[in-house]
Amino acid sequence: MDTIDSILAGKYPAKAHAEKVVDYIRRKKNASLSGGVIYLEGQKTRMLEDNDEAEPFRQRRNFYYLSGVDVPDCYLAYEIDTKKLTLFIPPIDPDDVIWSGLPLMPEEALKKYDIDEVQTIDQVNQYLSHVGSKRSPKSAIFAVQQQVSDHITFLSFDEKDFVLLKEACEESRVVKDEYEIALTRKANLISGIAHTEVLKHVKHKKNEQELMAVFIERCIANGARKQSYGCIVASGENAATLHYQRNDEELSKRWNLLLDAGGEYRCYTSDITRTFPLHGKFNKESRQIYDIVLKMQLDCIAMLKEGVCWDDVHAHAHKIAIDGLLNIGIFKGSAEEIFKARTSVAFFPHGLGHYLGMDTHDTGGHANYADKDTMFRYLRVRGTLPAGSIITVEPGIYFCRFIIDPYLKNPDHAKYINEDVLNEYWDVGGVRIEDNLLITKSGSENLTNAIKDVAEMEKIINS
Amino acid sequence: MDTIDSILAGKYPAKAHAEKVVDYIRRKKNASLSGGVIYLEGQKTRMLEDNDEAEPFRQRRNFYYLSGVDVPDCYLAYEIDTKKLTLFIPPIDPDDVIWSGLPLMPEEALKKYDIDEVQTIDQVNQYLSHVGSKRSPKSAIFAVQQQVSDHITFLSFDEKDFVLLKEACEESRVVKDEYEIALTRKANLISGIAHTEVLKHVKHKKNEQELMAVFIERCIANGARKQSYGCIVASGENAATLHYQRNDEELSKRWNLLLDAGGEYRCYTSDITRTFPLHGKFNKESRQIYDIVLKMQLDCIAMLKEGVCWDDVHAHAHKIAIDGLLNIGIFKGSAEEIFKARTSVAFFPHGLGHYLGMDTHDTGGHANYADKDTMFRYLRVRGTLPAGSIITVEPGIYFCRFIIDPYLKNPDHAKYINEDVLNEYWDVGGVRIEDNLLITKSGSENLTNAIKDVAEMEKIINS
Repeated sequence: MDTIDSILAGKYPAKAHAEKVVDYIRRKKNASLSGGVIYLEGQKTRMLEDNDEAEPFRQRRNFYYLSGVDVPDCYLAYEIDTKKLTLFIPPIDPDDVIWSGLPLMPEEALKKYDIDEVQTIDQVNQYLSHVGSKRSPKSAIFAVQQQVSDHITFLSFDEKDFVLLKEACEESRVVKDEYEIALTRKANLISGIAHTEVLKHVKHKKNEQELMAVFIERCIANGARKQSYGCIVASGENAATLHYQRNDEELSKRWNLLLDAGGEYRCYTSDITRTFPLHGKFNKESRQIYDIVLKMQLDCIAMLKEGVCWDDVHAHAHKIAIDGLLNIGIFKGSAEEIFKARTSVAFFPHGLGHYLGMDTHDTGGHANYADKDTMFRYLRVRGTLPAGSIITVEPGIYFCRFIIDPYLKNPDHAKYINEDVLNEYWDVGGVRIEDNLLITKSGSENLTNAIKDVAEMEKIINS
Repeated sequence: MDTIDSILAGKYPAKAHAEKVVDYIRRKKNASLSGGVIYLEGQKTRMLEDNDEAEPFRQRRNFYYLSGVDVPDCYLAYEIDTKKLTLFIPPIDPDDVIWSGLPLMPEEALKKYDIDEVQTIDQVNQYLSHVGSKRSPKSAIFAVQQQVSDHITFLSFDEKDFVLLKEACEESRVVKDEYEIALTRKANLISGIAHTEVLKHVKHKKNEQELMAVFIERCIANGARKQSYGCIVASGENAATLHYQRNDEELSKRWNLLLDAGGEYRCYTSDITRTFPLHGKFNKESRQIYDIVLKMQLDCIAMLKEGVCWDDVHAHAHKIAIDGLLNIGIFKGSAEEIFKARTSVAFFPHGLGHYLGMDTHDTGGHANYADKDTMFRYLRVRGTLPAGSIITVEPGIYFCRFIIDPYLKNPDHAKYINEDVLNEYWDVGGVRIEDNLLITKSGSENLTNAIKDVAEMEKIINS
């Protein structure tokens, strides 16, 4: 914790990120880029429709990556040859100060962010005109299509590229540096506290929304104001809906709770799922499924290291699932045939995990949602994992009638499923266990400390 | 509470609202409107930029007013002659069901909402073509400018009006019916619980954000998932920033907390402010200011009844403030002269209150932000209040250097201010007390039950 906080007491490494992005563009264009300027606009203040309040603010991720600035209505420019990063901030509006207090001031911005100069946003065009005309041998501007304001002009630049910058940011964001890892650790630590708090309260609450409230309370109190994504607080069969969002049902007649929730810290996300018994102890069927999913997760985590192919890890999770479901009698027949038939997709229909960063489903995964192979269609990362990437490992087994019924009606799959045994398991709903893993040269490091050991979970629930 | 829940167990009165809107248009056009159709689109699902998750959903208020439907991507039409209300819902997308479960189904919609027919959204144009061509003597469509999708066609209608409907909805929304009052009561009850919970925790928390967490927890747990507006959790001098939103400072060296927060219940808002001592007891200066603001509020509430002019009530609040500030020596001179000079605006710079409904600053107030009279510039409601309207009464006195300094430098105001006395009060920050009042024929009813009696507040904080 102390190490994390001491890293985070420093500045967000915006200029190192800018250099990484420049390197990517340079490799792609096979050119020196000496006359190049990178230009990005942050998210603007947007008003709620027919209303006088602003929409909740969410900074553009690529803008944050090159600035560390989580303030609306800013712009930035990075001069590639001089490595000068300029931030443009809104000027002071006295009327606004009466209501909202003083905004970000230039001296404060210089002290807080990894930038070289601060100007106000009314100076952007003058700045661009100046830097464009003085570059040699040839000036070039890199910006993002549809994220350039109408009043901005790039007339002084010889070349304009509206494609490469976005790609460069998205690809550069895959491998995280020490600062980004510390932010992700912090988001995970806070969310771990919140997950434990839910365990402590689960026996005394009556409704899913009360548990959601407990989770969010701990996140906000510890500095994670926003959730990384809409919490999933799913009791019983609700857990079979992968992105369940209603979170408002009574708990009394349900066995298990699936809690998929993570706080966001300074624009960096966490994404953690736990499944636990609502009344202090798993019933037989739930425990069986939990043990299979936990084995899927632990075995997959053991495979992780730099260069591993994520498709292989995902396929391995299916193999463990098939062995487990054969073992308890839901599947019958040959494990190899079931794997080939893709019948396990009926119970584990989503991908094993995704990159995690400023977006919960972070950039650079190269999914192929048109893949004809159902086992890989929803896999959000394809190919090998680099050291420094952070990925979720989140196997699950679900009993969702809408998904499983078509398999039962298809003889190619139905022959592998024992429906009588399956019928004992619908109440389990679904089990998912999800951690956030940092890929290293020699293996991986688990950034998630939320409890998943059954004995330990049961102890907390019953204490 | 039981009465509220029994009212809310019924359907939201969408058709009665549609009739009210039709009446307004009929009066404005001085015509029978027999061939008219009202057309509204609900808010669409909007994706976060560069992301695969949707933005937080907020239903269009006028759409909710005529439907009671809090679901994205719906449309509605109301046929004025037959009084038939048709809701259009998205068709089932099997891919989406895998992730999100079954959407709103037609039978469910008919049972849940005050509507006559359900169709899917791909049928809207066919429906419009049909109802437009069969109307007599002349068909007319009423819709809202910039809230009609590009693919929608009104070709079959003789007349098209894109102005009146919005105005009609906004004006109709001012006077609430029993159902809307019950929703506002419910939002107030939940927020009252949350305010009390903060009082209970205030001595044990160290940071503003921990108290914000407590408030939001109680709201979510009791069914108010969203806040009506961004919470203001302002300790000490932060309370002098009227719309303070940082909510992240340490409490230890501050005397008071200003908590301006209210949960939203089924699209209806509450808006409640309390100011209380952080360490169990007001110091002398804070108590003096609190007593003045409380008198401003109670006296103004006593003036309320159908037909009262809100400008007069607001002016009365200033008079009480002037008397109070004269009494403690911050003001000197004649109360009448100070009132005429508008010097009290330095300490009470905002309006006394605003209509409250589906928007926190609800429609129909007819503010005049260009008013040259500083006392009335920010008053969000002008003119007389009808019975059935709900209005906030939220006087305040603030010690904000940015606002007060120009008054001290202006001899026309400075002569009324004793700066030596004023200097004793900066630490108070600001005091605001805000309740939600239902205007009745004979007076008003206070919908807010959060504690504001000093002895009672101190008792809870110290217990």
